[in-house]
Amino acid sequence: MREVAILGIGQTKIDEHWELSLREIGGNAAFAAMQDAGMDKVDSLFVGNMLSPLVSGQNQLGAFLSDWVGLWGQESVKVEAACASGAAALRAGLMAVASGDIDSALVVGVEKMTDKAGHDVTAALATAADADYEVEQGVSFVGINALIMRRYMHEYGWKHADFAPFSINAHANAMQNPFARLHQKINVEQFEKSAMVATPVNLLDASPTGDGAAAAVIVPAEKVASWNGKPRIIIAGSASATDSIAVHSRKDPLFLSAAYQSAKRAYEMANVALEDIDVFELHDAFSIMSALSLEACGFAERGQGVRLGLEDEICPTGRVPICTRGGLKARGHPVGATGMYQVVEVVQQLRGECNGTQVDGARVGMAQNIGGSGATILTHILKAE
Amino acid sequence: MREVAILGIGQTKIDEHWELSLREIGGNAAFAAMQDAGMDKVDSLFVGNMLSPLVSGQNQLGAFLSDWVGLWGQESVKVEAACASGAAALRAGLMAVASGDIDSALVVGVEKMTDKAGHDVTAALATAADADYEVEQGVSFVGINALIMRRYMHEYGWKHADFAPFSINAHANAMQNPFARLHQKINVEQFEKSAMVATPVNLLDASPTGDGAAAAVIVPAEKVASWNGKPRIIIAGSASATDSIAVHSRKDPLFLSAAYQSAKRAYEMANVALEDIDVFELHDAFSIMSALSLEACGFAERGQGVRLGLEDEICPTGRVPICTRGGLKARGHPVGATGMYQVVEVVQQLRGECNGTQVDGARVGMAQNIGGSGATILTHILKAE
Repeated sequence: MREVAILGIGQTKIDEHWELSLREIGGNAAFAAMQDAGMDKVDSLFVGNMLSPLVSGQNQLGAFLSDWVGLWGQESVKVEAACASGAAALRAGLMAVASGDIDSALVVGVEKMTDKAGHDVTAALATAADADYEVEQGVSFVGINALIMRRYMHEYGWKHADFAPFSINAHANAMQNPFARLHQKINVEQFEKSAMVATPVNLLDASPTGDGAAAAVIVPAEKVASWNGKPRIIIAGSASATDSIAVHSRKDPLFLSAAYQSAKRAYEMANVALEDIDVFELHDAFSIMSALSLEACGFAERGQGVRLGLEDEICPTGRVPICTRGGLKARGHPVGATGMYQVVEVVQQLRGECNGTQVDGARVGMAQNIGGSGATILTHILKAE
Repeated sequence: MREVAILGIGQTKIDEHWELSLREIGGNAAFAAMQDAGMDKVDSLFVGNMLSPLVSGQNQLGAFLSDWVGLWGQESVKVEAACASGAAALRAGLMAVASGDIDSALVVGVEKMTDKAGHDVTAALATAADADYEVEQGVSFVGINALIMRRYMHEYGWKHADFAPFSINAHANAMQNPFARLHQKINVEQFEKSAMVATPVNLLDASPTGDGAAAAVIVPAEKVASWNGKPRIIIAGSASATDSIAVHSRKDPLFLSAAYQSAKRAYEMANVALEDIDVFELHDAFSIMSALSLEACGFAERGQGVRLGLEDEICPTGRVPICTRGGLKARGHPVGATGMYQVVEVVQQLRGECNGTQVDGARVGMAQNIGGSGATILTHILKAE
């Protein structure tokens, strides 16, 4: 396959955008990415979105968004893989450009979650789980993550406060990100006293949802030397893997085998080793997911992901910087858009645009996007050249 | 891009499958295609589906279906473009195999529509239209097609009975297709006396929905010489184009510009001329769509698509055989699955497996799948070698 580069990026602030519609939010990120790329037309548009049929009564988001941004006539399609929809859309665009059939693609992850009441959104989010075997039993999506976290604490002997560094790091990093939903530092005491959502997951273990969109323009690498003095960003690795959709069907509910498999394939494709990864935007929808993701990708032994936080290795100056722009926890989690926020943030790191949370000399970055409780996981590795 | 072949196909009968769940229907077509291809594993699974979040409370259909068919660990993703979801999934799989990143893909179009009451399904189908500018005004999806048909009759002077040959041909052809939803011949009198749905669209202008799935296994063409004595089927052309999602925003509501553009690109890519197309599986969700599709693809002058039916050119022995297995009208229209049924049927024609409706010596076939009232349109051209 031919090599593909990310030429432009764009994003909106994640918030409750009562004043903006689904198409406006997606369009704003799309226009920003096109402007950043210096392009006014692309061959194809790939949209990552999970909830628009349920929350906005709108399907066919490809044509919907290409219409709004003026790409009439061009190809457009929506890709959905629950909370991994953003990265799945990037991978679909990547395959199309890599094949040689198209020469440019705009990839937009977009989600508008505030058009329905909270309980409706909770029900909509549960469609990421197995409707027949999980949701039908009355478990919510937070509930599934709570069961996983409780089992992990029991199995490996960690207490709830041991997860605090994940959320504290995310909140601290988000202070430097104008696009983040939350701008408030937190400490261990606040983490421990936060309102319980589904034991043991409390409010500060969980990421806030929101309205937002993030986008990127991708082109064949051979067509890009450098751009405005910025380094050329290559999509060096891309892989997607699945696991049973219901947690109870997995051989081990505490091992994200789809993360392991997609990361392994991405490392091979990008020809990088673990120690080459300078920054890792992982999918901390819940604090437990940070631990499981770090373990499955090889940064920690089984059951020891939490230790990386406790030993201060996850901050921007640590050994494995994660959530450098706030992560899902503080930047926010507009579900179908999140995967594209992660990619945009890795590009920002590789371009050296991250101010207070810049990872010094970052040349290789990884983004991992999780759908459901681990059923679909995509890993992308970007390199600055 | 490297050339891609269709190695195996599978489909289920379209019906009200009260006894089968969403995963079972999709799985049955998937297993049939894998068996036909002589494979028990593929690299990736691409699922085309429109309604599962709304009708079955199930998202993430990629992981959902890969779980059911035993493809744990493999890549899987869902693609959605309203009623064009099936062909959009095929194109996503095609790009991935063509890029060289993967070596085999299973593409499944699946829809389970009978898990909700009729009015809920009508509301779900309306998500193909523009929620803000069309549906909010109270128009249903049938209503939009009725407005288009009425305008066409007014503009070009056709009467309702002139559309009868489209439905009569479809019903006659479906008699030979064991997978078709409807097995009943109809005549002009029945067509004219059929119950009105939304003037001038009556029941025999409209396609029946249903539960069903169709699937194909695709691989690099270089890996296939021939298979069980069947010709090698190449995906010679593939293109997707969009138009405004709301009909009123289009320059001309009677011209499917996305059909014109995707067909034009597909002809060029496949290096075929109009007269090379031996069989054309078009998207006759409503009889008016047959006329508009034939016109946009160049088989008839503007406003004259109806004439092809009246002059008996659309039957299997005619100049432009369409809906040779029953089309959406009589084979049935399980919306997100339809695009894959069309492709499977073109393969059957090119393999010479169509018994009573076989087009003699068919070597080149085209399938065109329409999302919404023409907002997303994909055209695929297959060749037998």
